[in-house]
Amino acid sequence: MKLYDRHGAPNPARIRIVLAEKGLEDRIEFISVDLIAAEQKQTAFLAMNPMGKIPVLELDDGTFISESTAITEYLDNLDGNPTLTGRTPREKAVIHMMQRRAEMMVLETVDDYFHYATPGLGAALRPWRMPDWSSAKEWGQRRGAQAVQNMPYFNDILTQQPFLAGDAFSMADISLFAGLAFAELAGLPIASELAALNAWRGRVSDIPAVKNRSGQDILPEDLARLGA
Amino acid sequence: MKLYDRHGAPNPARIRIVLAEKGLEDRIEFISVDLIAAEQKQTAFLAMNPMGKIPVLELDDGTFISESTAITEYLDNLDGNPTLTGRTPREKAVIHMMQRRAEMMVLETVDDYFHYATPGLGAALRPWRMPDWSSAKEWGQRRGAQAVQNMPYFNDILTQQPFLAGDAFSMADISLFAGLAFAELAGLPIASELAALNAWRGRVSDIPAVKNRSGQDILPEDLARLGA
Repeated sequence: MKLYDRHGAPNPARIRIVLAEKGLEDRIEFISVDLIAAEQKQTAFLAMNPMGKIPVLELDDGTFISESTAITEYLDNLDGNPTLTGRTPREKAVIHMMQRRAEMMVLETVDDYFHYATPGLGAALRPWRMPDWSSAKEWGQRRGAQAVQNMPYFNDILTQQPFLAGDAFSMADISLFAGLAFAELAGLPIASELAALNAWRGRVSDIPAVKNRSGQDILPEDLARLGA
Repeated sequence: MKLYDRHGAPNPARIRIVLAEKGLEDRIEFISVDLIAAEQKQTAFLAMNPMGKIPVLELDDGTFISESTAITEYLDNLDGNPTLTGRTPREKAVIHMMQRRAEMMVLETVDDYFHYATPGLGAALRPWRMPDWSSAKEWGQRRGAQAVQNMPYFNDILTQQPFLAGDAFSMADISLFAGLAFAELAGLPIASELAALNAWRGRVSDIPAVKNRSGQDILPEDLARLGA
């Protein structure tokens, strides 16, 4: 299989963790996509994923799978033991619910903040994301404020259970972990008083698949190129 | 099980179709939520779903499941034969990918258009959705334009295969069907030249679970109350 991604970008990081957790890294050829040159918005890439986003997984039969949840479903089910996406109907439901909340409440809000309220990855990428209208920066700032306001919700859950969907590490934790790493990079760190959330982040960081995955931390190379 | 929903709203319609397709309607107690009174944004409802959105499924053990994809995962896996969300890793991946594209490209863009560029369900609901800033209407209109621009993508896919994820009706079709019904109601019908998309819509409308599901069409009662 081939994975089109970029060392360290938030959504690719989700799949790097899944690959490490499922012991599949050796079966993947990694192909780096130049985000700052907007390679993912050019014709060749759009033929693989019309959304113009990484990561994209190319299966051995030539099928292209995009969207982190879809790629995770594929990789997690290959061995018939879907520990990350759930084995019972109830596990699947709770994991998908909490995963989606992590996306909506953190990953997506931080993404909007990063690209509109900060230099992001430069102006060249903006027209593809959201129209570059007059109030874009104000809107980005509001989205960043929403991200910060949403963090206590996850802290509250983690005062009651060790992981987002219950007792076991799952796709939901991976989404929130990537979202909070992205938030910190964008200048929206977890407040120190959110003790359960900070403790959870430390716990997740120590999981071998998270600690030892291939790929670097979030975006340092890209940000250095932009002088941020 | 109990389903907190509202006859005819787009996301509840998705679950009504799933229930009919899986033969589970008899096992559900339906509880109507008053959307226009913003019941779903009040404390009692937020304790079930902090996102403040319908539908919410209450399992027999008291667990609350929100997010249409998560509820669908639960219901579809109860009989051990997940026809709507996929049986093989590849099926699961393609269905989740196309489902998410239908959400991002149609359901979410139309939702923003409906609530910001049209009277929507009234001003009382807006503060919970997105801050009511000066350019909100302009932003809503741009989102509506995106919805219309995205429809040919789905038309192209449906020139090549009968359903969004291939040969079989799935969760992806349900998401797109609800999105396009919502679009039409909001004043963004499918263009007549998108022949494959219109033909697909007719085909899906004729599926017994879609045709005979409980619940009415999208929102006529709510719109009548607003005088729209």
